[in-house]
Amino acid sequence: MIELNGTTLAEELYVNLRKRIASLNKTPNLVVVLVGEDAASKIYVKNKQKKAIELGINCEVKTLPNNVTQKELQNLIKILNNNSNVHGILVQLPLPPHLDYTLLIENIALEKDVDGLNSINLGRTIIKGSLKPTHISATAKACMYMLKSLDIDLTSKHVTIVNDSNLVGLPLSGMLLKEGCTVTICNKHTHNLIQHTNVADILVSGTGVAHLIGKQMVKEGAIVLDVGITKLNNKTVGDVDYEEVKNKVYAISPVPGGIGPLTIAMLLENVEEAAKIQNG
Amino acid sequence: MIELNGTTLAEELYVNLRKRIASLNKTPNLVVVLVGEDAASKIYVKNKQKKAIELGINCEVKTLPNNVTQKELQNLIKILNNNSNVHGILVQLPLPPHLDYTLLIENIALEKDVDGLNSINLGRTIIKGSLKPTHISATAKACMYMLKSLDIDLTSKHVTIVNDSNLVGLPLSGMLLKEGCTVTICNKHTHNLIQHTNVADILVSGTGVAHLIGKQMVKEGAIVLDVGITKLNNKTVGDVDYEEVKNKVYAISPVPGGIGPLTIAMLLENVEEAAKIQNG
Repeated sequence: MIELNGTTLAEELYVNLRKRIASLNKTPNLVVVLVGEDAASKIYVKNKQKKAIELGINCEVKTLPNNVTQKELQNLIKILNNNSNVHGILVQLPLPPHLDYTLLIENIALEKDVDGLNSINLGRTIIKGSLKPTHISATAKACMYMLKSLDIDLTSKHVTIVNDSNLVGLPLSGMLLKEGCTVTICNKHTHNLIQHTNVADILVSGTGVAHLIGKQMVKEGAIVLDVGITKLNNKTVGDVDYEEVKNKVYAISPVPGGIGPLTIAMLLENVEEAAKIQNG
Repeated sequence: MIELNGTTLAEELYVNLRKRIASLNKTPNLVVVLVGEDAASKIYVKNKQKKAIELGINCEVKTLPNNVTQKELQNLIKILNNNSNVHGILVQLPLPPHLDYTLLIENIALEKDVDGLNSINLGRTIIKGSLKPTHISATAKACMYMLKSLDIDLTSKHVTIVNDSNLVGLPLSGMLLKEGCTVTICNKHTHNLIQHTNVADILVSGTGVAHLIGKQMVKEGAIVLDVGITKLNNKTVGDVDYEEVKNKVYAISPVPGGIGPLTIAMLLENVEEAAKIQNG
């Protein structure tokens, strides 16, 4: 069994990324927009900021009250778009329900959209042909990077993704289809989830339901990527019951220490690229 | 067994569409760009043109030689974009291999992209949230329209799509996910296709392989949409062996007379909408 250690993969990637950042004639500058008091969001933002600063990336967090209006946020995005010293803009999700996040992110300039979440970046991630997105969702990139680290041929592999979100399931399914995979996308409405998971050569789960994926739900010899993160009895766990599943699979990413740290690495890579392609 | 008659559905739709076109203070104008001498493409274009004219839509076909360059085509698109009398632009596919069609279509103005094929239209078709595409691929729209004509709840239905193209599989999968479906997307690399087709509540096949889908490949009581069209023994047939499958399913669209005529109706609806939202 191969443990897909995201921390190690990220550290390897940082060696090169640090050099690339140092060789830029500017300090990459990321602005994170954080709305409200969600405790988990605050931790995620803090982790990103800490790692960014370690790598030589400026990371400013703009904290806004829970009752900020859509218009105020859109004005903020406009100001950040027009500020040539800002290279990347990240809106921490989830936003309070009165705010429309897709509409907000659609206003982020293509090259500053380091989450790859506006419709052009998502469209170009998925569309077949020569068009390339400026940025790809860091989580989807992390999943692809982890799969590629196994050095296997992805063609004809059946991948089941238990997540159909703009950040994970949608971009990842498009990337996998381009590799010649067959892809099944599940969501909260899926009936009889096991029939889709236990036939998959590769299983990606990102629901936030602790230990949703047990031994019976995984195919013998499968590759399992755990994109979920939540708390169970005060312990950080993922969607997959790691202890139960680990001896049945070919490879598996743990939580913590799997997709999470690699996602931060991919995000910071996006910020470096954003700084490189922009004047200012 | 319900036969999903695309000709009837299209005719019903035309009654209303004709009125909407007549009430515009202009004649909608579609330009079709046809490159080379592909016999099937010529027939498709002729059918679209005939129907368009019947409905009161102007349809001009710009025929270009097989050796036209990318640059010449891009210049043509630019001229058509800038011509306020042109409301819709359609590049008939496939293009000769020396031409890059995604790059070409990316240059079509969003509101004139009546095939819904540029990355913003595709991205907005797929992305979850409040963003809406200006146009959606006519084939994907035709499939959704046909499913909705059955007046069934799509939530939790498992749909297998044997097509992962920009025009069919990608937009349709996004639309179905928004309806709460579980979606499996297959392609030419898929191993053991039957394992994905005969578990599907809804099967959509668009490969152009005559009679690829036989009785064994379909689940009892499924809904089958046949998006393929090809010739077998000089007869027009689809992906599905209709005679073999029809008694096993709840509903099925025939070829000819299924998705084909409904796709033309959806395209012409896109042209009407394009004319409505544009000045000129």
